[in-house]
Amino acid sequence: MAVSAPKGTRDLLPVEMNQRLALIDTLRGVFTRYGFEPLETPAFERIDTLLGKYGDEGEKLIFKILKRGHGAETGQCDLALRYDLTVPLARVLASHSDLPLPFKRYQIQPVWRAERPQRGRFREFYQCDVDTVGCEAMTADAECIAIVHDAMEALGVPTYTIRFNHRQVLRGIVEAAGQGEREIPVLVAVDKLDKIGWEGVGAELAERGVDEAGVARIRELLAVDGDEALDLLERELGEGGRRGVAELREMMRYVADMGVDLARVRFDPTLARGLGYYTGPVFETVTEPYVGSVSGGGRYDGLIGMFSKRELPAVGVSLGLDRLLLLLGELGRLDERASTTEAFVTVFNEALRGRSLEVATALRAAGVGTQVSMDLDQKLGKQFKHADRVGARWAVVIGPDDVSEGLVALKDLRSGDQVRLPLAEAVARVAAG
Amino acid sequence: MAVSAPKGTRDLLPVEMNQRLALIDTLRGVFTRYGFEPLETPAFERIDTLLGKYGDEGEKLIFKILKRGHGAETGQCDLALRYDLTVPLARVLASHSDLPLPFKRYQIQPVWRAERPQRGRFREFYQCDVDTVGCEAMTADAECIAIVHDAMEALGVPTYTIRFNHRQVLRGIVEAAGQGEREIPVLVAVDKLDKIGWEGVGAELAERGVDEAGVARIRELLAVDGDEALDLLERELGEGGRRGVAELREMMRYVADMGVDLARVRFDPTLARGLGYYTGPVFETVTEPYVGSVSGGGRYDGLIGMFSKRELPAVGVSLGLDRLLLLLGELGRLDERASTTEAFVTVFNEALRGRSLEVATALRAAGVGTQVSMDLDQKLGKQFKHADRVGARWAVVIGPDDVSEGLVALKDLRSGDQVRLPLAEAVARVAAG
Repeated sequence: MAVSAPKGTRDLLPVEMNQRLALIDTLRGVFTRYGFEPLETPAFERIDTLLGKYGDEGEKLIFKILKRGHGAETGQCDLALRYDLTVPLARVLASHSDLPLPFKRYQIQPVWRAERPQRGRFREFYQCDVDTVGCEAMTADAECIAIVHDAMEALGVPTYTIRFNHRQVLRGIVEAAGQGEREIPVLVAVDKLDKIGWEGVGAELAERGVDEAGVARIRELLAVDGDEALDLLERELGEGGRRGVAELREMMRYVADMGVDLARVRFDPTLARGLGYYTGPVFETVTEPYVGSVSGGGRYDGLIGMFSKRELPAVGVSLGLDRLLLLLGELGRLDERASTTEAFVTVFNEALRGRSLEVATALRAAGVGTQVSMDLDQKLGKQFKHADRVGARWAVVIGPDDVSEGLVALKDLRSGDQVRLPLAEAVARVAAG
Repeated sequence: MAVSAPKGTRDLLPVEMNQRLALIDTLRGVFTRYGFEPLETPAFERIDTLLGKYGDEGEKLIFKILKRGHGAETGQCDLALRYDLTVPLARVLASHSDLPLPFKRYQIQPVWRAERPQRGRFREFYQCDVDTVGCEAMTADAECIAIVHDAMEALGVPTYTIRFNHRQVLRGIVEAAGQGEREIPVLVAVDKLDKIGWEGVGAELAERGVDEAGVARIRELLAVDGDEALDLLERELGEGGRRGVAELREMMRYVADMGVDLARVRFDPTLARGLGYYTGPVFETVTEPYVGSVSGGGRYDGLIGMFSKRELPAVGVSLGLDRLLLLLGELGRLDERASTTEAFVTVFNEALRGRSLEVATALRAAGVGTQVSMDLDQKLGKQFKHADRVGARWAVVIGPDDVSEGLVALKDLRSGDQVRLPLAEAVARVAAG
C-alpha cells in the first residue's frame, strides 16, 4: 500500500510547521493591529453554492463529495470542497445578515483544487485573505496596501514593491486609444508586457485588430509609471479613467497618513489582474530578484453581494503563504532547525530519573520547551544525539555529584560549551535564549 | 438558494474564533513546554488508507471524494476526507521513516464524519491530539497526564479529575472472576456502571452468562478506587493484571516527579475506554458538575505500526476543543465580546481624517488592535455605535480643538468615562489595557 501523502498534497512536518506557524503569527499580528477579525468556514460547501462562480475551467477543478448513504454506483454529489475563500465569504455575508458593516475579516485556511498532477501544482494549499466588506470608500483599499507594507516590514523583507493600478484607468486607456469595444483582448495582450516586451504586445494587438495609431496611443499612455504616469493619465483620459485616477490619489493620501513608506508603493498602469473580477484599485507585491509576486488583491464590488440580494462593495488582499515561505528561505530568514524544543534533559541513570523530571518541570515553569529522555536505560551519547536531532539548543545533564551539590551541567549544543550551575541559574540562562 | 453553512457544519464568526484561538494558544503553549512539535496532514487520504480501520459503522461515516475527471455517472472515488488524526499519524510514520523516535507531535485540525443530520452531531469538528510514538516506557504515558493537568490549570478549570486505569488490569479483573472467555461483553457491561448502577450491570452480566459468584467477584474487585484499589488488585490479580498495576504505579511516580497535583489524578478500575484499541494505561478527564469528559486517551501499541511493518508503541491524549469551550463558557471564562479590536478611532470630519489615521498608526505601533471609521462623512453617534458593535473597549475622538492642542479624547466604552490627553499618554493608557 502506498504510504505517501496523496498526489499534490504534503505532510507538514515539525520544522516546516514551526516555520509556517511563525509566519502566520506575524501576519495575524498585523491583521489584528488593523482590527481585522478571524473567520473560518467549513471545508465543504453545498455544490450549488460553488458551481457557476469559477467558469468552466474552474469548475473542472472542484473536488466533489459523494452524497452520504449513496453508493459509488449512483455517483450523487451534494457537497464539494471549497475552491477559494471568497465564495465562502460571500455565503457568510448572506447567511449572517446581522454582521456589522463594514465587516473586516481575515481567513487563513486551506483550499482544494483538482489540478492535473503533472502540472506540479498543489491540490491542497493555504490561502490567507484579508477583506473589508461593505465599504465603498478608498480608506479600505488604502488599508490593504498598509497591511501588506507592515507585513513585509515585520517579516524583514529588504526589497519589495507594492504596485497598484485601477480597473477603470485600464478601461480608460483602452478607450482613449479608441479600442473600447475590444477592451478585454487588448488588456490581455498588455498584461504580457513583462514577458514579451512591446514588440510582442504590439504584434498581438495588431492581430486582435488594433490599428497602428491605436497601438502607438496605448504605448504612449503606458510609457511611464509612478506619479508622472498619474499626471499624464489625468490629462489624457476620459471621465471614467479620470475618476479612477482620482480614487487612486485619494487612496494614496490615506496610505501616506497611515505611515506607509511611499518608496515601496508605485503606480503601474500596465498592471492588469483579474480583469473580469476587479472593479476598482488593484495591487500586487513583487519581490524581485526573489520569488516574484507574494500578494495580490483589489476591489471587487460585484461579487460578495451575489447570495445576499444587496450591494456589498468589497476590497481585499491575499498573501501567498507558500510564496512567502519560499521568499524567507531565499533571504535566509527561516530557521532550518525550527523546533519548539529548546532544552533536552538527559537521564544519567534510572535512579536519577526523578531528579531529571524535576529539572524539566522547573524549565517548563519558566516557559522553556523541554523534553526529557524517555526511553529507559539509554546511554548519554545516544541521548545527546537525540537532543540534537529534535533541534534542542541545550542539553542538561544531572549526574550523582550534581544532585548532591544542587547543580546541573548545561551544554550548549551549538557551541559545545558546557558549564555547571545551580539549577535556578541554569533555568534563567536557558529561558533567556 | 440556501445560504446557511452545510448541514452539520458551522461558520466560526469572529467572537467564536477569537475564543477558540485563545484556547488553542493556551493548549499549544502547554504542548510546546513538553517538547511536542506541530504536525499537519492533508484533509484527504487515499481511500484505501482509510478503509478497514474504523469498522463497518465507521466506514459509513467516511466522506468519499469523486475522482478527478470522472463524472458523477461513474461514481469512482479515490480519495476520502480524514475521519480522525490517528490514521494520518500512522501513515506519516510510514511515509517519513527517518523521523527521530520517540516522535512527539500534536495536531490540531478538523476531521469529517458523515453523521446522520438528526443526531445533532457535527460533520466537521476539530480534533486536538497529542501523541508520543516509539516509546514503550511509562514516561510517555505520564506526560499525557501532566499535559492534561497543566492545560486544565492554565485554563483555570477549578474542579476536574483525571481518572486512569489500565487495559491489562481490566482484563485481569475479568480473568480473576473466571470470565476470561467473555472479556469484551463483561467489560462493555461494566462500562455502563455510571449509568445503570450495580443492579443494572449485575443483570446484564447474568444475561451474558456470568454466574452469581462471578458477578460478586467482579463487584468486589471494583468496589473501591484510588490507591486502596491498586493495593487490592495487586494482591488479587494474576500476573498480567499485576503487571498492569506495576505500570500504573511507575507512571504515577513520574507524574509526581513532574509536579502534578496528585489530588487531581485518581485510579478508577471501572474506567473502560476503546476496548479493542487501547493496550495499556487509559485516562479520561471529567469536570463534573460541568460538561463531563473533556479529554481522553491511552496507550495503543498496535495501531501506529500498521503501515510501517515495524512495531511502533504509541500513547496519546485527545482534548475536545468544543467541550472545553463549552466548559469555559459555563465557568464564565469566555470573553463574550472577544474581539481583536481594542480601539476605534472616530473621524470628526473629512478634513480631520488624516489626523485620525495618524493617531491609529500610533496606536498600532504600540501593538493595539485599532480600527478607524472607514465610511466617509458619518456622524459621530453612528461611529460610536459601530465601535461598540465591533467590540472595541476604547473610542478615540479627535476634534478641531484637539488637533490644535495636540490632544485626543479617549472614551472608555465600558464605563462611559471620557478624558482628554496628549496622544502619547492616550496610547500608553490603551496599550496598558
